[in-house]
Amino acid sequence: MLIPLDHRSPLPLYRQIQDFLSGEIRSGALPAHTRLPATRNLAQSLGVNRLTITTAYEGLAADGLVYGRQGSGTYVAPLSEAVTGPTAPVGASQDWPLWQQELLSHTWLPAQYELDRMSAALDRPDAISFAAGMGDSSLFPIDDFRRAVTDILRRDGRAALSYGERAGFAPLRATIARIVTERGIRALPQHILVTSGSQQGLSLVARLLLRPGDVALVESPTYAGAIDLFRSLDVRLAGVPVDAQGMQVDRLEALLTTHHPRLIYTMPTYQNPTGTCLSTARRRQLIDLAGRYNVPILEDEFAGDLHYEDAAPLPLAALDPGGRVIYMGTFSKMLMPGLRLGFLVAVGPVYERLLAAKRVDDLSSSSLIQRALEAYITVGRYQAHLRRACQLYGHRRDTMAEALRRYLPAGADWTTPAGGLFIWLRLPGGLTGQALAPVAAGEGVGFAPGELFFPGGRSQPYVRLNFAEHPPERIEEGVRRLGRAVVRCLSTGSGERQSGDVLHNEMPAI
Amino acid sequence: MLIPLDHRSPLPLYRQIQDFLSGEIRSGALPAHTRLPATRNLAQSLGVNRLTITTAYEGLAADGLVYGRQGSGTYVAPLSEAVTGPTAPVGASQDWPLWQQELLSHTWLPAQYELDRMSAALDRPDAISFAAGMGDSSLFPIDDFRRAVTDILRRDGRAALSYGERAGFAPLRATIARIVTERGIRALPQHILVTSGSQQGLSLVARLLLRPGDVALVESPTYAGAIDLFRSLDVRLAGVPVDAQGMQVDRLEALLTTHHPRLIYTMPTYQNPTGTCLSTARRRQLIDLAGRYNVPILEDEFAGDLHYEDAAPLPLAALDPGGRVIYMGTFSKMLMPGLRLGFLVAVGPVYERLLAAKRVDDLSSSSLIQRALEAYITVGRYQAHLRRACQLYGHRRDTMAEALRRYLPAGADWTTPAGGLFIWLRLPGGLTGQALAPVAAGEGVGFAPGELFFPGGRSQPYVRLNFAEHPPERIEEGVRRLGRAVVRCLSTGSGERQSGDVLHNEMPAI
Repeated sequence: MLIPLDHRSPLPLYRQIQDFLSGEIRSGALPAHTRLPATRNLAQSLGVNRLTITTAYEGLAADGLVYGRQGSGTYVAPLSEAVTGPTAPVGASQDWPLWQQELLSHTWLPAQYELDRMSAALDRPDAISFAAGMGDSSLFPIDDFRRAVTDILRRDGRAALSYGERAGFAPLRATIARIVTERGIRALPQHILVTSGSQQGLSLVARLLLRPGDVALVESPTYAGAIDLFRSLDVRLAGVPVDAQGMQVDRLEALLTTHHPRLIYTMPTYQNPTGTCLSTARRRQLIDLAGRYNVPILEDEFAGDLHYEDAAPLPLAALDPGGRVIYMGTFSKMLMPGLRLGFLVAVGPVYERLLAAKRVDDLSSSSLIQRALEAYITVGRYQAHLRRACQLYGHRRDTMAEALRRYLPAGADWTTPAGGLFIWLRLPGGLTGQALAPVAAGEGVGFAPGELFFPGGRSQPYVRLNFAEHPPERIEEGVRRLGRAVVRCLSTGSGERQSGDVLHNEMPAI
Repeated sequence: MLIPLDHRSPLPLYRQIQDFLSGEIRSGALPAHTRLPATRNLAQSLGVNRLTITTAYEGLAADGLVYGRQGSGTYVAPLSEAVTGPTAPVGASQDWPLWQQELLSHTWLPAQYELDRMSAALDRPDAISFAAGMGDSSLFPIDDFRRAVTDILRRDGRAALSYGERAGFAPLRATIARIVTERGIRALPQHILVTSGSQQGLSLVARLLLRPGDVALVESPTYAGAIDLFRSLDVRLAGVPVDAQGMQVDRLEALLTTHHPRLIYTMPTYQNPTGTCLSTARRRQLIDLAGRYNVPILEDEFAGDLHYEDAAPLPLAALDPGGRVIYMGTFSKMLMPGLRLGFLVAVGPVYERLLAAKRVDDLSSSSLIQRALEAYITVGRYQAHLRRACQLYGHRRDTMAEALRRYLPAGADWTTPAGGLFIWLRLPGGLTGQALAPVAAGEGVGFAPGELFFPGGRSQPYVRLNFAEHPPERIEEGVRRLGRAVVRCLSTGSGERQSGDVLHNEMPAI
């Protein structure tokens, strides 16, 4: 099949392919039940990534234009009214009800959409993206996991598809309790609440403790998904600046007095995006302040186990004299993001309230996935997986740091983190991540631009690079391209620049 | 193993067993790595339900006292500090931080906890509970589903465990669009948002459209999980009374003028708990009012496909002139609750906002379960499953109605619903569901007491009976017991009574 592609078009390739096929189907040139070329073949013949074809086909399926037969390919769907679009109400341009129009005037949409958009724009077969927030999923032993799922369904039958215990499958909570005990947290299974990913944990805590107009303290920069969540709840954010030792806790007291925050959200260990690790002295100081000012701490340890030098300091939850810290962990970074399983550890009355919040939010998390994970992940197996990941990712971190030294022009700056997934790169010459992105995409490399991570969202001379996801040769090649893009931006003077010496930007409450 | 059980104790049997074993383990009488009796054997030797033993063992596991080896039984865990309880901070009685103590003073806990408590109290091997909110899970072809899961993991590998499309797996959305088209709703896949059960759908809509202090209109009575959710958001509820034709829409305008609600939440088809079905005339009137007063409607059609007479009238979403109705559906009732998959159908700007709300709440729903469901559930297979369920449940509905006529004393009143899962029984002599429950539990039968479904939570002379879950002989026996419990309550004059002729209680805004 010959599909004309314009590689210089701003329209991503997958979209060009999708639009072309969509036209052929709607015009009748491709009649119903025609089999489309296999993705692999079409990708080869067009010289594009196979994922590009898959994405195009998925788009066609979402429009009802094609259907898939498992294991036997993709076929053109019959042209029904549902496919060509009903006359009304759906799809017609019209006056929406006033309450819907009012929603439009809330201009808020997740900052993370920018990442999705950039990923879609990075559309060439050999593209390398350092934008992701996870580890290398190819480490995950999918065959073992498949066996675990099959065994569970055979062993537990329908019980695996019933509502389970509301707090989470008890044996899994027992396993999690043992895992966090390894991090020094004295937790029993009844202090564990299994959540649908740590994003839900964050959402439950925020909704329980915060009301519109309340202030939350966050590191500046911080996790983009947290900024999005807090904004969706009309919570105002005050940023605490970060330096090489993590959150600048000595600036916390002034913010506590000024803003009377109702929550401190922090990633003390291998912080996202800066990779910094809060020192033990600061950890103690933070807990002390939270106690004195009566502010709960949500500790997000999304990658506390991923260390490439000495183990990280004890988490805040391990230093907590009692009930000040809610601890949050996840299996997404270590194992697979699509498991959608995370957990909260909480002691005191707040536990019961979080459980109630979970109940009204989604009743309970998937019993099947919980049981399968529990069957798969004995503590020993988790520790073995961890050791392997640490060894591999540590090597990749070094590869990336070395490549940055080699390929980035003078003025670029970064600190090699002791753990986690990210290098936080300061661009030279005040170049911003946003200005660099399109040029970098042209070179075939992607990253997460710094502005996503600041509560105010202003242009920032930073980008976040994931060093854990790709093998060394891809890291090397990706950084080479990145260096080329930076040099090109600087030499042409293209792109917006950030004047002067903005460090980790301090955010006022917004 | 001999475990002393007191069948007259208020402590449930599973708890007596758990406490006994816990004592034996903590005292060292049962040393580490001892294998506990198989649940089946212990259940037989104690003359209790096997589930009682499973529950007791799960409790022990949650306390860290036992561990399970897959396929080879349950063993006593070594007594470590984590098991006997660390000295501090966990488990010690202590002064919690002030913010935690303040949480305690919010007395709100989900009303549905009452159901959990009652289910736990209904602890004898032959107990029959009509309390559940779902159909008969034994209809679900678990082996077919297991094959689908295994095939998906083999075919898609790690892709099945990655973050998928945020709106949901595209082919699944295409299937859902076809399913709702069968109900008369003109939806395309891009109007479908896959959620983690319909509870999450409800939660997303409520959080997007409501702020603390806002008023939502609900049927009175309504779904207990919705009451819990709205209360957790500090949303005030105004109840619209229900009669045999569903919500009394002619009383709606007064409530709209008085309360200026920001949402109407309704189950027009086979309403939970009353089983009533809103007439087409009222449906049109409702949509018209919602348009004139600019109030969004959330239509929860949790069992619209389960009809035992003529098909239900068209859903509100099918009558919507454009963007007034958000439609919500689920696979929990038809297939398995533990799938945790539901969906929203929305047109207009609200769709994008709901997608953003989903993003900040839990990023996306399990890719694996979505793919497996899509592979399993072709439209044809869904319709076949549906026909089977309708035939079976219709028969069970008749069995229950017949048994109610036979076993309930005069004064009991109910209407046989044309579809859905529930019969809403008005108890005779002003007897309340709460007063009846312990006596009924003594007879070995359970139900959902009426007060759970009223926003105000006051005692009500109603109970909700699920007729779909159990086979006819169990229904017959359960209703016989229920009749005996009612007669006993009335003859001893035991239990609180509701005076006079309260019908579907009208709730003021609270």
